Amino acid sequence: MRDFLPEDVRRREYVIGVITRVYQRYGFEPLETPAVENLATLLGKYGDEGSQLIFKILKRGEHEKTGEADLALRYDLTVPLARVVAQHQAKLPRLFRRYQIQPVWRADRPARGRFREFYQCDVDLLGSTSPVVEAELCTAVSDVLTELGFSDFVIRLNDRRVLTALLDAAGVAEGLHGPALVAIDKLDKIGADGVEGELTARGIEPEARAALLSCFDLRPGTDATARSCDAELDRLATHVRSEPGQSALDNLRAIVRLVGGTRAASSMRVDPSLARGLSYYTGAIMEVSVADLPGSLGGGGRYDHLIGMFSGQEIPACGFSLGLERILVVMAERGMFPPALANAPADVMVAMFDMSTASHALRVADQMRACGLRVLVYPEAEKLGKQIKYADGRGVPFVALLGEDEITAGTVTVKDLAAQTQHTYEQSAAGAAILEALKERG
Amino acid sequence: MRDFLPEDVRRREYVIGVITRVYQRYGFEPLETPAVENLATLLGKYGDEGSQLIFKILKRGEHEKTGEADLALRYDLTVPLARVVAQHQAKLPRLFRRYQIQPVWRADRPARGRFREFYQCDVDLLGSTSPVVEAELCTAVSDVLTELGFSDFVIRLNDRRVLTALLDAAGVAEGLHGPALVAIDKLDKIGADGVEGELTARGIEPEARAALLSCFDLRPGTDATARSCDAELDRLATHVRSEPGQSALDNLRAIVRLVGGTRAASSMRVDPSLARGLSYYTGAIMEVSVADLPGSLGGGGRYDHLIGMFSGQEIPACGFSLGLERILVVMAERGMFPPALANAPADVMVAMFDMSTASHALRVADQMRACGLRVLVYPEAEKLGKQIKYADGRGVPFVALLGEDEITAGTVTVKDLAAQTQHTYEQSAAGAAILEALKERG
Repeated sequence: MRDFLPEDVRRREYVIGVITRVYQRYGFEPLETPAVENLATLLGKYGDEGSQLIFKILKRGEHEKTGEADLALRYDLTVPLARVVAQHQAKLPRLFRRYQIQPVWRADRPARGRFREFYQCDVDLLGSTSPVVEAELCTAVSDVLTELGFSDFVIRLNDRRVLTALLDAAGVAEGLHGPALVAIDKLDKIGADGVEGELTARGIEPEARAALLSCFDLRPGTDATARSCDAELDRLATHVRSEPGQSALDNLRAIVRLVGGTRAASSMRVDPSLARGLSYYTGAIMEVSVADLPGSLGGGGRYDHLIGMFSGQEIPACGFSLGLERILVVMAERGMFPPALANAPADVMVAMFDMSTASHALRVADQMRACGLRVLVYPEAEKLGKQIKYADGRGVPFVALLGEDEITAGTVTVKDLAAQTQHTYEQSAAGAAILEALKERG
Repeated sequence: MRDFLPEDVRRREYVIGVITRVYQRYGFEPLETPAVENLATLLGKYGDEGSQLIFKILKRGEHEKTGEADLALRYDLTVPLARVVAQHQAKLPRLFRRYQIQPVWRADRPARGRFREFYQCDVDLLGSTSPVVEAELCTAVSDVLTELGFSDFVIRLNDRRVLTALLDAAGVAEGLHGPALVAIDKLDKIGADGVEGELTARGIEPEARAALLSCFDLRPGTDATARSCDAELDRLATHVRSEPGQSALDNLRAIVRLVGGTRAASSMRVDPSLARGLSYYTGAIMEVSVADLPGSLGGGGRYDHLIGMFSGQEIPACGFSLGLERILVVMAERGMFPPALANAPADVMVAMFDMSTASHALRVADQMRACGLRVLVYPEAEKLGKQIKYADGRGVPFVALLGEDEITAGTVTVKDLAAQTQHTYEQSAAGAAILEALKERG
């Protein structure tokens, strides 16, 4: 787990600010839940592997000695959402659009862009089964990445029911659907030959294997995502024969058409090999990625049964989760942050001539702050050269000097460190003058 | 621990925004630390009672069975700051001004404005012993509360060394300093008679008791904070005889003089009965309160030795911590939040006539969002009356209609729900027109 020093925090807040603004532009509203949930709420929701990665909290007081845990750290933002809906349903709108940007904790091995404490940026719409929901999530995520300066991302789209239909069509026994998907999901890591080997190792018969390679178009040199969405949907329609599979393809076609008129259209791809790990997905699934980061920047999908597990009442839902840490890693590597984020902590430093006149320094600082300036007061009457060097070293552009003459005359001398010039102002006018100078240099 | 629904989050973010802006105006920089610290880092830093209130996290994997804890949830923001300074010192400026606004966790009994997960808003300046630091913290806190709309707060000021000097002067044996302070600290809860009873119960001799009542001016009907700071400092000077006590009084006088020229001057009080619980304070201590909330909205003080416990090198420090939850409680009770925080989640809702023309709805929504509008798309082609009622119920002021006629003509009809009027615009011009209408109504 990491400390974030000032420049780190500024970068994180910049990205979170863009995500928040875009989600609000889609009518999503903020939700925050506690870091700590009842352990029972989380257990069994993330599979066996997930349960092992939950940080568990000891009972308090005399029960501490039992070594038992009753609470746990939040593992994702979806299960807490489901709990909130069950608990506060009467206070929530019928169509609940919420975003939630908070840390989650997993006792995982750290890797590049993967940490034990990391932020998820989730956006979900509850209460509708319309493909408009999936389409809006895709365009919102596209808007976020575009505003952050990404131009090369791809949003891959698939449907759980299409996966099932393709596996059925290839003749994979139902009990082997899971292992086959795990193998197919590794395509971007181990290539087509690797996938074939994995399929063999996982007990898929030669005939089904050949059919799978054809259905999923896994042969070396081919790439489903190089095709237009419509072309890939047409190709898939020749393989998918079951009714649920056909209806899922129709739904994907609707999503693609809905996104078609927006700025996100060119980023959409249909990718039959996209599987997504979590078992609670029931329909469309999505993932967004860029070429230079293995894995994804985020993903999501439709999960129409999870909310019902908590509220006892089926509420359809679809969501998307962006990984803040992975976005930050790529933005840092590509140098995508605005230079202003590395800025000085203040616009002006008031130097300290003498402790006996320090109250004048604080009064002038107070006046400047009332103008909206960020003002640092040097707290000790050290040598003036040392003080100015400190301001310069921290990138503070102006130093305000209040010597005996200035105090007597009610003025203040403002030194421009870059231009190496200085001007004397009435104390009440200095703030406005510095603001003006800052505006001029942009 | 609490869930924060959309309006709660907006209120919290509003207050955090004001605090952040003011602290930045003082040149403070943001720091964030992990929610989880090593248990060993926290143990022994908050006294015996504090250690019992720490949430402890079980070891992971096979060690889970041992029932042992090795990690813990952050208990405050000061100890993590000390750890950060020891760990990252080379990357930090010589005078480190940091603010940190994050949740902390305590396994405490909840009460009004007290929760097991709550936010602290800390601001600290490391690296200087100058009273300018204390003065700047007081003016910063005053600026925060003034900008939030408080006009009746009081910043009480005292010094740990003055407390010691007064107890010595009253003839209280050193071993009884602690119990005597606990009794005196209850003045605002149990009154002067109550304090006298507590002093008796805690074994303070009658002579010392009488002297204490005089030194601390605890007699019924008197109130140290009704006096001017200078008058109270003059009165205390007649009791304090030790050299450290006199030098502490001089320091308090310097702080009062420094604040004297700023907007915070009228809020300052010297209060000899202010004790503050934490044992790490070494000099000036401060607390800010309002009449209608028992306890304080925040407090702080100088702690010149704590950082050295981690870094091995003495670094003087002084800080102030505002309690977000208590500020929110008072603001809610007094109705101090700007009405805009209760606003609708969107500026306009695009209604859905027919799923076959839904892509037009998404394209128009996309255009409006590109103008900066917050746009909700109704996801299902339900009866128009039901859709409009939904928008109205959520406070969304405009509804955009895209029927067959509009789609053919490339226009959109915008309904103003409050005025019960409607206008038809070119699709590309509708966003600007709605923005204009929103500006007009302010």
